[in-house]
Amino acid sequence: MKHSFGSDNHSGVHPLIMEAIVKENNNFKTAYGDDPYTREVLGRLEALLGGNCKALFVVNGTGANVVSLGAFTNSFHSILAPRTAHINVDECGAPEKFTGCKIIPLSSPDGKVTPEEVTKSLTNFGEQHHSQPRILSISQPTELGTLYSPEEIKALADLMHSHNGYLHIDGSRISNAAAALGLPVKAFTADCGADVLSFGGTKNGLLMGEAVVVFNTSDAECKNECGASGRYSDPNTHNALRNNSLQANILQYIRKQATQLYSKNRFIAAQFDAYLTENLYIKLASHSNEMAKYLETLLSEIPQVQITQKVESNAVFAIIPKWLTEELLKKYYFYTWDEQTGEVRWMCSFNTQKENIEEFVADIKGLLAKRDN
Amino acid sequence: MKHSFGSDNHSGVHPLIMEAIVKENNNFKTAYGDDPYTREVLGRLEALLGGNCKALFVVNGTGANVVSLGAFTNSFHSILAPRTAHINVDECGAPEKFTGCKIIPLSSPDGKVTPEEVTKSLTNFGEQHHSQPRILSISQPTELGTLYSPEEIKALADLMHSHNGYLHIDGSRISNAAAALGLPVKAFTADCGADVLSFGGTKNGLLMGEAVVVFNTSDAECKNECGASGRYSDPNTHNALRNNSLQANILQYIRKQATQLYSKNRFIAAQFDAYLTENLYIKLASHSNEMAKYLETLLSEIPQVQITQKVESNAVFAIIPKWLTEELLKKYYFYTWDEQTGEVRWMCSFNTQKENIEEFVADIKGLLAKRDN
Amino acid sequence: MKHSFGSDNHSGVHPLIMEAIVKENNNFKTAYGDDPYTREVLGRLEALLGGNCKALFVVNGTGANVVSLGAFTNSFHSILAPRTAHINVDECGAPEKFTGCKIIPLSSPDGKVTPEEVTKSLTNFGEQHHSQPRILSISQPTELGTLYSPEEIKALADLMHSHNGYLHIDGSRISNAAAALGLPVKAFTADCGADVLSFGGTKNGLLMGEAVVVFNTSDAECKNECGASGRYSDPNTHNALRNNSLQANILQYIRKQATQLYSKNRFIAAQFDAYLTENLYIKLASHSNEMAKYLETLLSEIPQVQITQKVESNAVFAIIPKWLTEELLKKYYFYTWDEQTGEVRWMCSFNTQKENIEEFVADIKGLLAKRDN
Amino acid sequence: MKHSFGSDNHSGVHPLIMEAIVKENNNFKTAYGDDPYTREVLGRLEALLGGNCKALFVVNGTGANVVSLGAFTNSFHSILAPRTAHINVDECGAPEKFTGCKIIPLSSPDGKVTPEEVTKSLTNFGEQHHSQPRILSISQPTELGTLYSPEEIKALADLMHSHNGYLHIDGSRISNAAAALGLPVKAFTADCGADVLSFGGTKNGLLMGEAVVVFNTSDAECKNECGASGRYSDPNTHNALRNNSLQANILQYIRKQATQLYSKNRFIAAQFDAYLTENLYIKLASHSNEMAKYLETLLSEIPQVQITQKVESNAVFAIIPKWLTEELLKKYYFYTWDEQTGEVRWMCSFNTQKENIEEFVADIKGLLAKRDN
Repeated sequence: MKHSFGSDNHSGVHPLIMEAIVKENNNFKTAYGDDPYTREVLGRLEALLGGNCKALFVVNGTGANVVSLGAFTNSFHSILAPRTAHINVDECGAPEKFTGCKIIPLSSPDGKVTPEEVTKSLTNFGEQHHSQPRILSISQPTELGTLYSPEEIKALADLMHSHNGYLHIDGSRISNAAAALGLPVKAFTADCGADVLSFGGTKNGLLMGEAVVVFNTSDAECKNECGASGRYSDPNTHNALRNNSLQANILQYIRKQATQLYSKNRFIAAQFDAYLTENLYIKLASHSNEMAKYLETLLSEIPQVQITQKVESNAVFAIIPKWLTEELLKKYYFYTWDEQTGEVRWMCSFNTQKENIEEFVADIKGLLAKRDN
Repeated sequence: MKHSFGSDNHSGVHPLIMEAIVKENNNFKTAYGDDPYTREVLGRLEALLGGNCKALFVVNGTGANVVSLGAFTNSFHSILAPRTAHINVDECGAPEKFTGCKIIPLSSPDGKVTPEEVTKSLTNFGEQHHSQPRILSISQPTELGTLYSPEEIKALADLMHSHNGYLHIDGSRISNAAAALGLPVKAFTADCGADVLSFGGTKNGLLMGEAVVVFNTSDAECKNECGASGRYSDPNTHNALRNNSLQANILQYIRKQATQLYSKNRFIAAQFDAYLTENLYIKLASHSNEMAKYLETLLSEIPQVQITQKVESNAVFAIIPKWLTEELLKKYYFYTWDEQTGEVRWMCSFNTQKENIEEFVADIKGLLAKRDN
Repeated sequence: MKHSFGSDNHSGVHPLIMEAIVKENNNFKTAYGDDPYTREVLGRLEALLGGNCKALFVVNGTGANVVSLGAFTNSFHSILAPRTAHINVDECGAPEKFTGCKIIPLSSPDGKVTPEEVTKSLTNFGEQHHSQPRILSISQPTELGTLYSPEEIKALADLMHSHNGYLHIDGSRISNAAAALGLPVKAFTADCGADVLSFGGTKNGLLMGEAVVVFNTSDAECKNECGASGRYSDPNTHNALRNNSLQANILQYIRKQATQLYSKNRFIAAQFDAYLTENLYIKLASHSNEMAKYLETLLSEIPQVQITQKVESNAVFAIIPKWLTEELLKKYYFYTWDEQTGEVRWMCSFNTQKENIEEFVADIKGLLAKRDN
Repeated sequence: MKHSFGSDNHSGVHPLIMEAIVKENNNFKTAYGDDPYTREVLGRLEALLGGNCKALFVVNGTGANVVSLGAFTNSFHSILAPRTAHINVDECGAPEKFTGCKIIPLSSPDGKVTPEEVTKSLTNFGEQHHSQPRILSISQPTELGTLYSPEEIKALADLMHSHNGYLHIDGSRISNAAAALGLPVKAFTADCGADVLSFGGTKNGLLMGEAVVVFNTSDAECKNECGASGRYSDPNTHNALRNNSLQANILQYIRKQATQLYSKNRFIAAQFDAYLTENLYIKLASHSNEMAKYLETLLSEIPQVQITQKVESNAVFAIIPKWLTEELLKKYYFYTWDEQTGEVRWMCSFNTQKENIEEFVADIKGLLAKRDN
């Protein structure tokens, strides 16, 4: 069977995760997340993220994004996102369909956006003809494997807040970011002012399961008047103190209406239980990241392989000759990212082994050598 | 040409309204309602309704309802309405499409709903599996021509408010209600706790144009904390003091996204200017109501005509033999309301004349006499 | 720990299903169902259902319904369903939100609808003011545990087809129907003219996973002209030969946009592989049904327990004194179905044991005896 | 009162149009377009456009676009449009809200798109993760006042058709295009393969009213099998013969659900009756175009005014000093198009007079002279 560099979704389930699922299968429990165990695991996740937040489980990544964005928008809002964002190009229009919002794609050569670029689209506030800019959605790491620093995230959150907007982080690979930055997830989400996070699991060894986390939900901090922090507050008013409690309150209905409420929720809880225990989520992600670094290192010796993006998480992007792509696809899975340039994407996962990398690079070298003769 | 008892929409435009349109056509004005004249006329309408409200113009009745309901709901809410409601049966699903909400049809033999009937559907609050009851929509007068008393409306508003919900009044014929009750519109809308009103014009002599009015928007009254009065407040919290300012703030975007923003708004303003001047709206509605009463009186002598609903505004509902319906349709327009029972609806309008009524009843009598022989 | 009669979702995963999941976890596979194994299992399911159909996997029951209905409707259509239908009362408005359609609730004392009842709502075809009746959605077994005979289903399908409409079957417990009727699923779905089926798994021992099946997709049978069989055909045209190929073609996009595309699809495939092997799905459902019958039998001796619905699948509905409900809830999970009458629902599942039933009934008797003294 | 170069919507109603409205106000007519007169006028419009088409009236331009796009899309499709398109930037997200589709903005310096630019986004057909490209929407003239030649439109239609897609033309100023090109509207819409047209009226002297026209609806030409021409045909199949009859059949429901059905439709019919009589629509547009040309000519002598777009219809775009904009706004209405560059837009309308232009240019010259001193 082929080894896959196609997606971290091509890997199966980590043994410790599978063990947790099997272990949970021994009793009756109330369905739909309404059991003490699920609430306890969610509490652990919330504590890990600083406590001032509300989490719930959803089934998949598109679901997590749709629920996150749905909680912070009305249909006349716009969602800003880098052109390469998963929500913009890989979700078959689910965000537009569910939220009714316009997505405004921002120019982004490396998968990241800058405050300057975002600012260009923070216009037309108060004008009835125009979708009102409401939330910026960034991916950490990005779809191109690159990373934002905490400072960069804080700058984007501050920018959005100063326009009475919000910051969403699509963290389908958030553990890879934490591992790469050497920081707890909290440090580059809650602490930077993020308002809502899609906390991924499936791409890092879970069978299935993600969490939506709304930050800054503490009633204690609420000093606003007349609902000014709510999603329908006057867009011209800046709120020094933000409170997302209202959004958190409606999460459960949005999850259900988005078809993201899984009946046997405790089996996601069991996975997260194992995932968060002894930093398994970080360990798996660290391994994936290291494998990508190792691949990059080995490839750097090959002039016909041109690495196109910084390797900061578990993806390697490279331009290689098209004939080489075709030959490699006979033995390995991976995707062509850009048909025109011949750019390909190689993803490493928790069960990518050093030997897989070495064999792969050896095959590349062999094919190149054969071609040269 | 046939006289029409089909709909008050079959009549054209009252001469004073047409005159106002023609008169307004003499200059340049900023489009989309952003001109002083339109704002002034809206101000008059707001004053008429008590002042503590915000009005804007829309094009038609379905538009007014959709904008009204959209301002007070998220898609996971449900909208309660009598089964016969225009929003439930005559708008091709526009409310569901625009709001994403479920409409829950309530049993209603006379077009009205009672607090008892509404209460049956005020359930499942806080349950994620169920659309959350949010707003009750009633029509005044109803689609069956009947009327709510102010006390009845207040009871419904209080009931909804006690469940943190709202009351919408579909007033496509609101002037007929005012004329029939002998009360200003304010007395059975704002003063009874209604939250939002579709204030109709087209069916009472306008070329086109309705208004959406959100009540209770005064900032001064706002004592709520943490946005509790906003539409995403905790459904379990009752707010003694309500404030709909947030909903009013988003009306303009909802109107635009619902395609109900008319570029040359001033021509609706001009019609409302004339309509509100010297109580024209009441005069026209009074006439329609009187014609319906006159029709009822004349029909009451005819045993083969069975009046089925109280004649309280400008509609007469009756069951007549189907052959008679067929014969009458050769000379007059009107609609069969219920194919099974043979119930028909006769609407009177501002330009229905006494002679029209008399001729119509004479024709009925003549046809019956001929048949008897 | 409490035994649960609350829902068949409160049970965990059948050991053979869990074994299949664990076994599948040994390799890389292309994600999103695009692997030979997933296609093979789908092929088995399609063969079981007669072959002339197209199946794909989704995550949960609300998802299956939403995708099924979305494939056969445009937003100006209406969906007819018994008032008690899951799509009408238990999905938080997901069907309205996703399809934009109006749901018309039909009167149904036992969870079933009759052609007479459906016919009352098959009106207003061709009238622009009214949502166009498009698809009837029935549940088999119903939410009240009752069953349609194949003849009853065929009559409903024929009725819908004669109005150029469609029949959807919500089969979240379809295996229980097959077991109870002693018929293959095909016999009361495909063979009766059903157009689309939500084929459930989660409530009968799966971890998660359902299938959407579109019937009658054979190109060979297509004799229509100008797309007359397509979903936008003239509603006044009856098509003797139906072909749902177009709907099947768009399923994959609808699934993705509904957030129902699960990345590691092969783990649903593995479950269905085991589920369909040696009739496991029938065996588990038979057991659940038998347990419900056994419970009914034992309860029939107790005069204070009044069974309210025919026990035809794995549910028992009964009216019992409210104090008894309160006492029982201290030891068991189950739901009150109707607060007003005191009607409760007891669900049996694949892992309900005879002893659980006997203990439960003994407890009821004990509580009643104690009360009598 | 200020003269307005702000928008052709700032003008009122042409006297002949107003006369037609007044004249129509003399009788009863069936509402909602279901009267012989409205059908007759629609027939005239259809004949003017080649006959092989279906037209209906809507209220405003956003409505026309939403109905047009809704008839040709399912929510998993994408709509391609130049970034500057009205549907992309001026409709508050109404197209996304109503269709559920993603809008893909295309690069466009002059408001037009080229086949090369469109082709870049005609990708990912058959891939479930991606919104399926379905319809290209262009404006004629564009929002920047520029024009497509018939050959350019045909090339875009052919390109879309070769991908089983469609071409929509937003013709809110379609008469200006016809006048400028010296061609009947048919020559650059129906004859070039356009599938659906928003035929504008309000911006060219109507009180309100637009038409949606679906082309190529003749059943006679239908040679497709199995609905291949329908909107859910296999996107990989090219249809030599296209037939949009199905889309035309559903227009009326879409119009109603989009709240674009106007009750007193005959008053739009009356306006179009006058509008199409003796080429009034062309005469008014010719005048607007000439005024824009005249303005361009006079401005060309002023070095501080830099015309930025070709003046091909009734708009003049220019970069002028910001202080000059501020001074001019004291006497005239017009809009700044680009805050950063200082680009402004001056629109001419049917009632812009030569003297208005001359006075305006004189004022510019005067202000510049004063500043120079």
